[in-house]
Amino acid sequence: MSAMLAVDGVWVMLSAILVLFMQAGFVLLEAGATRMKNAGHIGKQLLGFSVAALTFWAVGYGLTFGEGSWIGHTGWFLDLPEEKGAIPNELSFLFQLSFAAVSLAIAWGGFAERAKLSVYLIFAFIYTVAIYPVVGHWIWGAEGWLHSLGKQDFAGSTVVHLQGGVAALVATLMLKPRLGKYNRDGSSNVIPGHNQVYSVLGVLIIWLGWFGFNPGSTLSAQDGFYGYVALTTVLAAAAGVLAAYCTSLLLTGKAEIPAILNGVLAALVAITAACAFVEAWAAVVIGLVAGSLTTYTAVYFDKKGVDDPVFAFSVHGIAGIWGSLSTGLFASPRLVEKVGIGKAGLFYDGGFSQLGVQLVGVVVAALYVALVTFIALWILDKTMGLRVSKEDELKGLDISEHGSYSYPEHVMFMRHEEEIRRVM
Amino acid sequence: MSAMLAVDGVWVMLSAILVLFMQAGFVLLEAGATRMKNAGHIGKQLLGFSVAALTFWAVGYGLTFGEGSWIGHTGWFLDLPEEKGAIPNELSFLFQLSFAAVSLAIAWGGFAERAKLSVYLIFAFIYTVAIYPVVGHWIWGAEGWLHSLGKQDFAGSTVVHLQGGVAALVATLMLKPRLGKYNRDGSSNVIPGHNQVYSVLGVLIIWLGWFGFNPGSTLSAQDGFYGYVALTTVLAAAAGVLAAYCTSLLLTGKAEIPAILNGVLAALVAITAACAFVEAWAAVVIGLVAGSLTTYTAVYFDKKGVDDPVFAFSVHGIAGIWGSLSTGLFASPRLVEKVGIGKAGLFYDGGFSQLGVQLVGVVVAALYVALVTFIALWILDKTMGLRVSKEDELKGLDISEHGSYSYPEHVMFMRHEEEIRRVM
Amino acid sequence: MSAMLAVDGVWVMLSAILVLFMQAGFVLLEAGATRMKNAGHIGKQLLGFSVAALTFWAVGYGLTFGEGSWIGHTGWFLDLPEEKGAIPNELSFLFQLSFAAVSLAIAWGGFAERAKLSVYLIFAFIYTVAIYPVVGHWIWGAEGWLHSLGKQDFAGSTVVHLQGGVAALVATLMLKPRLGKYNRDGSSNVIPGHNQVYSVLGVLIIWLGWFGFNPGSTLSAQDGFYGYVALTTVLAAAAGVLAAYCTSLLLTGKAEIPAILNGVLAALVAITAACAFVEAWAAVVIGLVAGSLTTYTAVYFDKKGVDDPVFAFSVHGIAGIWGSLSTGLFASPRLVEKVGIGKAGLFYDGGFSQLGVQLVGVVVAALYVALVTFIALWILDKTMGLRVSKEDELKGLDISEHGSYSYPEHVMFMRHEEEIRRVM
Repeated sequence: MSAMLAVDGVWVMLSAILVLFMQAGFVLLEAGATRMKNAGHIGKQLLGFSVAALTFWAVGYGLTFGEGSWIGHTGWFLDLPEEKGAIPNELSFLFQLSFAAVSLAIAWGGFAERAKLSVYLIFAFIYTVAIYPVVGHWIWGAEGWLHSLGKQDFAGSTVVHLQGGVAALVATLMLKPRLGKYNRDGSSNVIPGHNQVYSVLGVLIIWLGWFGFNPGSTLSAQDGFYGYVALTTVLAAAAGVLAAYCTSLLLTGKAEIPAILNGVLAALVAITAACAFVEAWAAVVIGLVAGSLTTYTAVYFDKKGVDDPVFAFSVHGIAGIWGSLSTGLFASPRLVEKVGIGKAGLFYDGGFSQLGVQLVGVVVAALYVALVTFIALWILDKTMGLRVSKEDELKGLDISEHGSYSYPEHVMFMRHEEEIRRVM
Repeated sequence: MSAMLAVDGVWVMLSAILVLFMQAGFVLLEAGATRMKNAGHIGKQLLGFSVAALTFWAVGYGLTFGEGSWIGHTGWFLDLPEEKGAIPNELSFLFQLSFAAVSLAIAWGGFAERAKLSVYLIFAFIYTVAIYPVVGHWIWGAEGWLHSLGKQDFAGSTVVHLQGGVAALVATLMLKPRLGKYNRDGSSNVIPGHNQVYSVLGVLIIWLGWFGFNPGSTLSAQDGFYGYVALTTVLAAAAGVLAAYCTSLLLTGKAEIPAILNGVLAALVAITAACAFVEAWAAVVIGLVAGSLTTYTAVYFDKKGVDDPVFAFSVHGIAGIWGSLSTGLFASPRLVEKVGIGKAGLFYDGGFSQLGVQLVGVVVAALYVALVTFIALWILDKTMGLRVSKEDELKGLDISEHGSYSYPEHVMFMRHEEEIRRVM
Repeated sequence: MSAMLAVDGVWVMLSAILVLFMQAGFVLLEAGATRMKNAGHIGKQLLGFSVAALTFWAVGYGLTFGEGSWIGHTGWFLDLPEEKGAIPNELSFLFQLSFAAVSLAIAWGGFAERAKLSVYLIFAFIYTVAIYPVVGHWIWGAEGWLHSLGKQDFAGSTVVHLQGGVAALVATLMLKPRLGKYNRDGSSNVIPGHNQVYSVLGVLIIWLGWFGFNPGSTLSAQDGFYGYVALTTVLAAAAGVLAAYCTSLLLTGKAEIPAILNGVLAALVAITAACAFVEAWAAVVIGLVAGSLTTYTAVYFDKKGVDDPVFAFSVHGIAGIWGSLSTGLFASPRLVEKVGIGKAGLFYDGGFSQLGVQLVGVVVAALYVALVTFIALWILDKTMGLRVSKEDELKGLDISEHGSYSYPEHVMFMRHEEEIRRVM
């Protein structure tokens, strides 16, 4: 192995580790955004990652990156020849596994605070076998049909985020709102998360992970191009924060923390497709739009009766769509030439051609994911039921699914409080 | 320095940083698994790391890696000649310090919620001078006698984890159970930790650190072999999670979060010796056994009157033994040849030879650590006492050792609650 | 790009990511050290980083590192020619941005628990345009006048920490103490932070980030010198912990957690200037002095009526001064020659010459920062007011500035507790 290839290897390894760390971010984000009685329940994340890891090793990686035009059919159990002049397959696998696990974590967002643990686990398997690898192969596989069309998705606004977001939406619709979320007249109650410090820390960790997510998708350190990708990523994120802040002030008069957190995530999701294709100023624009848009759609879906506890669809779905389309607008000729996928966008000399390809990719991916998720959850609903009992939901998943409270010493207070209420 | 050596350096530095981050994981794991009144007390971790860092710099590194057959006797204060074609000594030191500090953190687990802070500090010094470097030298020193026998311990199932686990066991036995842990009839009470989110986050951080722990132990990025080590590590961990999940369901009907957390840690501990010697399928088997075994032994020791608050012996001791023995079963000829230590295992053409060597290593290491820990703690017990007063234990170590509560605003509630109880 | 340059790039990228992670550390440190009613408010950190990122990109980087003797005036929006044989500008930018953002985070410490969110944001802009880049250019700019004098500040005891600490001091003086902090007779009340686990975790993350901060400031992996820098950094930090521990025992009889945390941070701040210029034993001395000194000054300022909620001036200001001066004492000839800046210190053959240069740097930087911060805050005070209303301060910033509580389920307890008090 040449020294240059060794550098590439370390760079991909570092990136994989950063993206793996995002699991901790998702844990904190969901823990913070949900209630104390369901806090320990986020230990499920380890189960989901484990199912994904074993499945992706056995078949997922082969389905996504193996030979084949519609779907890969080589590379089971990572049984692949080492390519000369490429980093080892195990490193590629680790990097791609970290992406698949993020996508699954997003999808799981739609199940929060009410789904059965067993449903989570079965769905994790289905997602890693029949959903993620299919769209992944179409867009990132060497012979994928959307790839051949020139679909631009540098680090996965469509592959990772839109897929996760759409699956979360279907899940949240099929699971129905949490108890107490909506009143008889259809008006919505706020169910605040129990710890904003967790949420802020979670988002900071996810943001950190994105320095592996986007720049790492160069898969090479050779010309330092990942530095440029990191730049567009950080500029978009910063713009998204400020856009969400202003939008929140406009809508509510307050700088709502959840809005700011969603704003930065949405901007990161949006720039994920475009980070290598657009100029720095365009990254700022993409981030601004994403941060503002998501703040609106989060409020909109909540009003419309969609109880999406961690805003998975607004953050990953809506911003995933916007980000996927954005290269059709902003992809700059010099960067398209550098990356070597697709054409320049509408605002340069590209016309509507690239925008059309991006649109096809978004629509096809969303439809496919929605369809398979619906079928899978429909069958699970009819056979084992998706949702815990009302009593278990009221008690909380910590005690009903896991047998102990996350905060036993706080629960003592709560019980005592109830006693007092009864007595007085 | 050649570019290739520069890559090795960055790889070892990255690995060292990941392993150093495990300190934060141990802090969260212990904080989460213990009670609110002892939560701030985990700030002791900084004291322990600091004692270890200065001691390991002054003498520990020389004792472990210096010249000498039974113990090293060169390299005090890192006074060593730079080797041509090797990474700088300071980088080696940093990497090895991060390992010693992990081992100490494991040992400290046995002291939780009742030992005096001063005892912790003195023991940290003893551990870094007289325990860790001795077994470390035997197994990892260039002239170590177990190394010469062909003992396989790639990243330290024996050196780091078994040593820490055995020291923790001796400490927890000598300190006796926490007040209120056992009833007069010998039956055990659950003393639940106060925050499972901390524990989950802690375990995720420790898991992340393991991507430096095992793959980093290649000490080189040259042929990308660390990618393979990362693969076996992640597969074993995932298998351990699922095994612990199933075992917990079997034992209690619930997916207990502490069991799942112990499961992944145990699998990681077990694969630590074997990660470079075994095929991927064997890594899965090693992880499955570790995850299940630990869940049983944690329950077993608890019943038998061993109050091990953070399950240090089950997770690091039992799984450390299993992992150390596992290469004697599963070490594959092609990988043994690649790594160049010992022979193939029983399930290949190796016969019982390697298994015997592994067994000798485990027994000798466990006996040595147990003996020195016992003597050290016995002397401390007779001179200054190991344990805080009953009153201080009831009040909690935050207030008795550190002078303030970790959660003063929650303590207000507690006090008020007591007042109410008295008044009503 | 050569393989060696590619290694340098990855090393700088890794370092930048570690330093960016320090943002999460500052969030946890401040959240832990303040009260529950202001916990979610630390989401402001994302706003500050975002303002800094966009501003530093647009003008700050050019002001700091552009051509010009008193201030840079090239490189707006990173419009700079790529240098042959150097890492890409975007990587340099990312690394330097991470430093500027740390400095801002320190400065913000002085505003805690009482400033208006809008004041934070405007000050973030001013700091990134008119404060940080000016002193940064003087000391780190190729044509900077302090740089030409031979000012030694390897990773920014003066540039990053002293600047942040002085700005925090001016802010905390102008904002006046928090309500309830001082009694009529001038005696001080303790306002304990609400979560020491957050603080400990925050400090561990900040410490981790320092492995990028100091070693990364080599900006190169070529000869592994960053390993040496990491060694002095970790030794100083460990010494600082132990010094603060002893000092705290001496002053209060308890091993106060906040003192220990301040001790390690102060030692890290102090070694930041000196890490590449001093021998390992000197690093230990520098850390010991910093850890002890800060413990005293934190108590001293508190008594003198300076309400610095997160001890920003003691930790970053006092230790920043000590660290900046320390190279004038301890800079060793062989290391000065290696780094190529300034002369050896007083304790070698250097005489008072280097100490004088260091002193000039400290005085000039402190005066400049104090003056501009004062003017900026004075204008903001006269036009919009610096501080939230008394009522909002009592309610807490979470509800007044952000519209929701960080811990809504805990607040329920609090309200109920009040009710009980009224009823009983």
